Amino acid sequence: MNVAEDHLKSSQMKPVTARADGSPASEPVVSKRSARGKLLAQLLRTFGDPPVELVLWNGERIAPARVTPVATVHLLDRGVPLALLRDPQIAFGDLYSEGRIDIEGDHVRLLEAVYRGSASREKHPMLRALSRVLHRPRANTLGGSRDNIHRHYDIGNEFYSLWLGHTMAYTCAYYPTASATLEEAQIAKMDHVCRKLRLRAGERVVEAGFGWGTLALHMARAYGVQVRAFNISHEQVQYARERAKAEGLADRVEYVEDDYRNITGRYDAFVSVGMLEHVGVENYPTLGGVAARALASNGRGLIHSIARNRPARLHPWIERRIFPGACPPSIGEMARLFEPWDLSILDLENLRLHYARTLTHWLERYEAQIERVRSMFDEKFVRMWRLYLAGSIAGFTTGTLQLFQVVFAPHDNNDIPLTRAYLYPG
Amino acid sequence: MNVAEDHLKSSQMKPVTARADGSPASEPVVSKRSARGKLLAQLLRTFGDPPVELVLWNGERIAPARVTPVATVHLLDRGVPLALLRDPQIAFGDLYSEGRIDIEGDHVRLLEAVYRGSASREKHPMLRALSRVLHRPRANTLGGSRDNIHRHYDIGNEFYSLWLGHTMAYTCAYYPTASATLEEAQIAKMDHVCRKLRLRAGERVVEAGFGWGTLALHMARAYGVQVRAFNISHEQVQYARERAKAEGLADRVEYVEDDYRNITGRYDAFVSVGMLEHVGVENYPTLGGVAARALASNGRGLIHSIARNRPARLHPWIERRIFPGACPPSIGEMARLFEPWDLSILDLENLRLHYARTLTHWLERYEAQIERVRSMFDEKFVRMWRLYLAGSIAGFTTGTLQLFQVVFAPHDNNDIPLTRAYLYPG
Repeated sequence: MNVAEDHLKSSQMKPVTARADGSPASEPVVSKRSARGKLLAQLLRTFGDPPVELVLWNGERIAPARVTPVATVHLLDRGVPLALLRDPQIAFGDLYSEGRIDIEGDHVRLLEAVYRGSASREKHPMLRALSRVLHRPRANTLGGSRDNIHRHYDIGNEFYSLWLGHTMAYTCAYYPTASATLEEAQIAKMDHVCRKLRLRAGERVVEAGFGWGTLALHMARAYGVQVRAFNISHEQVQYARERAKAEGLADRVEYVEDDYRNITGRYDAFVSVGMLEHVGVENYPTLGGVAARALASNGRGLIHSIARNRPARLHPWIERRIFPGACPPSIGEMARLFEPWDLSILDLENLRLHYARTLTHWLERYEAQIERVRSMFDEKFVRMWRLYLAGSIAGFTTGTLQLFQVVFAPHDNNDIPLTRAYLYPG
Repeated sequence: MNVAEDHLKSSQMKPVTARADGSPASEPVVSKRSARGKLLAQLLRTFGDPPVELVLWNGERIAPARVTPVATVHLLDRGVPLALLRDPQIAFGDLYSEGRIDIEGDHVRLLEAVYRGSASREKHPMLRALSRVLHRPRANTLGGSRDNIHRHYDIGNEFYSLWLGHTMAYTCAYYPTASATLEEAQIAKMDHVCRKLRLRAGERVVEAGFGWGTLALHMARAYGVQVRAFNISHEQVQYARERAKAEGLADRVEYVEDDYRNITGRYDAFVSVGMLEHVGVENYPTLGGVAARALASNGRGLIHSIARNRPARLHPWIERRIFPGACPPSIGEMARLFEPWDLSILDLENLRLHYARTLTHWLERYEAQIERVRSMFDEKFVRMWRLYLAGSIAGFTTGTLQLFQVVFAPHDNNDIPLTRAYLYPG
């Protein structure tokens, strides 16, 4: 089963096989270029010449030579080229959000093409250094984290519920089969996590960063454990507490509105799904210390996080407009979490194509609910979030982003199953 | 199923529940200490006061307070204490090999107690720094590697065949069930590796470091692939070529007597089992580059290696007497292999308790063949290898050593199975 092929099949809504002007795809028309056009062609070269066509407001076309473009980008006013040339990574998203850039064709395929082309460019150390200075992420001090998290997660539970589905799980799902629905895959993800943690009824679990509280409820309900869960998003804490009450689980799940750094007590399991992205590499030894102190000697831990193949900032537009302070780690950076505390990594699974699949499901629902979103916010918000979801799919299908699920334990915990077959019953 | 409990059951040949002089275990007799005895007690403290009793050549006993010793160490002449105080980590192994130290009781339990006690001591950065200067590993230049490998692997195929069994696999086996024999577990390990690599008939595989050639033959025989395998141990290359000829597989397995750094060509799979320990961290980017260049765009790689929870030298006695130049990496160090080349880690499995089990099987066979070993070498060699095998078991059961099996792929290879269930059929 090939997740990516399948994704491409489902997301390829408008395959661009011929040019908009009707000329055959194999011989794209290249109009005589203005000075502006030459600069834009130069810009495309620094992004590795992706198979993308640009169309200016005056009708001028900059088409790739010898390849069929996967999509067409319309630059709708004369201010766009200069803004793009000044800081392309930030400007593209902003101009698209403002409706000054439009995309004709499949957004995901366009962004995949750009990410693939950029892969070689990213390797240049000078450009990487420059990008780091220009696009420094927001600090994750105790106060900084609260502000960063507020800006993303407190924009309205109702908004998220439009496209996350009733599980309200805003992290990578796990598709046991290619035909699983989003809801089935989110439940399967929680079961996959609980099996990896080998939860037994009566055990105590601490969760760092609980989203809308879905996993904590599932662990208490389906595995009979006692959960203490930490989160600094006020809106999410309120929502989760109401859910726990409504489900009659308030005595088994305690939602604490506090920072992971203030976790106290000893537990049989430590779990954190989708928080590490927001922690900041400089705080990994602290988080690792929290987990190490929290775990009983036969305890098990699990960290689930977006990751990278090598140290790199998140796309600066995503970091600035969508996830302030976020930075997915490489495995070498993640090591700073485990190594100072002699924690053993027992298992690591890369679920990146599961995230592409999850995001494809989210984007489909988002588009289906687009009028509701428009009525809650404005057109700029609608476009910004579309680009973010489509860009994230492209990040995972092109291998620009990874998703690591890491199981760990204190170094001397020998209560380890002989094989991982128990994760795959039947 | 708990591997460690099971191991302890099988290796606990002489449980020490009472003192040799018959006094009850809960109140060990502490004789009046000489100046020498006080220094030795001090030495035990720097190792975290393991529950071990020392007996000097003159009958003086240094017994732990309030705990039952797991074993008794006899210091058989008056030169032993000074040598131990000067450089305990090297001297203990050397004095044991020379018969100037003897161990009464289970060797593995003794070494486990020392490793557990040392765990806290190891954290002290000054002691770690001192140990690094005193015990610098031998360099792994092209010439250095050849010499280092010659010293361990070329001491005689016949010797290894006494206790490795007919598979001649000198790496961690994989026990699908607790009752698997060594041979079954070695074959299961090879199948586990081949399944993780998703080998298909007709594919081309390159192997870096092939031991006695067992895995290469298995891949060709059971999976129908074409293998090109590299090794710098002359004795092993000769042995492997004869096996391939005898099995009629010489046309499908090519054994090359050369360094992994000289691998050329493109392959569907890259595999290296038990070589990384000898590569040296400084050469990881080079090895990663070899793998990255060797892999086709839909290729898969697997590295199987002893590892550590944090950067640390191998035990200096093992490094000096048994494995010159060896240094198992932490995950942060291993990252240097993958990150420069944008290789994606797809899966990591920690098999440390499988190695404890494998080594227990090896040690049992070694002891059963002890007279043959004695006739091939001498008493010093016999004792040295016993201590090495027992110490390695203790390393894996105490979590001082890990065993990582890492599957990786080029960043844009999307041909990834949806789940890992295919590794666990039935």
